Amino acid sequence: MKNTLSAAVILIGNELLSGSIEDRNLAHIAKTLEVKGIRVRETRIIPDIESEIVAAVNTLRAKYDYVFTTGGIGPTHDDITSDSIAAAFGIPNVLQQDVFDIIKGYLDNKNIEFTAAAQRMAYAPEGAEIIKTEHSIVPGYRIDNVFVMAGVPRIMRQMLEGVIAHLKTGVTIHNAAVHANVGEGEIAAALELIQNAHPDIDIGSYPQDTDSVISQYRVIFVVKGTDLTEIDTTCNEILAACQTGRYEAIKI
Amino acid sequence: MKNTLSAAVILIGNELLSGSIEDRNLAHIAKTLEVKGIRVRETRIIPDIESEIVAAVNTLRAKYDYVFTTGGIGPTHDDITSDSIAAAFGIPNVLQQDVFDIIKGYLDNKNIEFTAAAQRMAYAPEGAEIIKTEHSIVPGYRIDNVFVMAGVPRIMRQMLEGVIAHLKTGVTIHNAAVHANVGEGEIAAALELIQNAHPDIDIGSYPQDTDSVISQYRVIFVVKGTDLTEIDTTCNEILAACQTGRYEAIKI
Repeated sequence: MKNTLSAAVILIGNELLSGSIEDRNLAHIAKTLEVKGIRVRETRIIPDIESEIVAAVNTLRAKYDYVFTTGGIGPTHDDITSDSIAAAFGIPNVLQQDVFDIIKGYLDNKNIEFTAAAQRMAYAPEGAEIIKTEHSIVPGYRIDNVFVMAGVPRIMRQMLEGVIAHLKTGVTIHNAAVHANVGEGEIAAALELIQNAHPDIDIGSYPQDTDSVISQYRVIFVVKGTDLTEIDTTCNEILAACQTGRYEAIKI
Repeated sequence: MKNTLSAAVILIGNELLSGSIEDRNLAHIAKTLEVKGIRVRETRIIPDIESEIVAAVNTLRAKYDYVFTTGGIGPTHDDITSDSIAAAFGIPNVLQQDVFDIIKGYLDNKNIEFTAAAQRMAYAPEGAEIIKTEHSIVPGYRIDNVFVMAGVPRIMRQMLEGVIAHLKTGVTIHNAAVHANVGEGEIAAALELIQNAHPDIDIGSYPQDTDSVISQYRVIFVVKGTDLTEIDTTCNEILAACQTGRYEAIKI
């Protein structure tokens, strides 16, 4: 897609891989970035293992404009993201005095001991740019093109808001959808012709389960692009193709 | 974890990366495999681009005991999984006559034309072992240690049921959890000692949002392993550590 930037997301945490917790961050990150003209092109979900984090960060930061990580920045033994990001860049993970002071002030105020374990939250790779947000005591940070954020969705969202201002942006990506009661196989040939006629538009075709809560129609065609007129034209062509086949279809 | 096998999951589809659809397959796959002693160690979410699918499949099938893919086996232009899997193995993607016959019979019965596009669903890499299930017309298949399944959750689940019998299994992985009203920073040092004393047990610590629907406690400690006695011991140690600190805690 012309004039857009690319991003990868790394979701860090054993709990996501084992199914203990389902990710609630990726869709929010992707939709937030699309508005800024940045497309998520790859996501990896990896365990709390330093070598895995290092490998994923180094592969993806070389391949995409931006990398966003979530998870592993708390105080417990499985929170190894900052150590691992520092290792990926070959630099030390160092105490950030201003972050330390903010967390200490917060805990002192609540009469909670600032344990050695909790102090690990005040560390970030040397030279990292700390991204403070209004709501979160523990900040995310940026190092080069990598943004490190929390795993807890509420805090991650606040950090992402703070991050947005630091990004170069592309042309906003827009979405439209056609819902239709058509079999995918019956419309596939027409759909491919429409896709080929609009190489800068991305048409996705998503069959719905009979119990789908998203649509009462059998298929959703999602049309993405940066040009609103071309998105509209494409939707109308899909709509016409569905209706030629006498299928009920609506444009959303 | 001793006597367990490893797996990777590849979720294929632009819609997952753009946030149009949230994945509902990974957690189910992970939990189903854990019972069979197979741990998901990595997941990649990638777009409908052949080179990306080829790279992910070839990297992950060399690294883990099993690879499971979801998505991209329908009839439309963005359904390129079988072509890509065949390319990854360097073999042709060929018509599976028995699959063709089953789909044709089903469509004939419904008076629906079996279009050229729909016929692509009857293709699989040469030598693939077709995995028929009771409920799905379009089957998944196995080639070497790679299992190819649908993206629609209901169909994926049926395919996974059919797949399970084809897997070597490890020792069942069990889970237990301690929920506690403790700050992670306050318990982190004790938790690390407990983790170090039980290297074959996996302890995860998951802070809960205040609006969490999972627990009314502030943190969940998930304890995983293959030895039920050791899981129980570990839970009791965590419980004791929390209560020493006078925190309310329960074992689930």
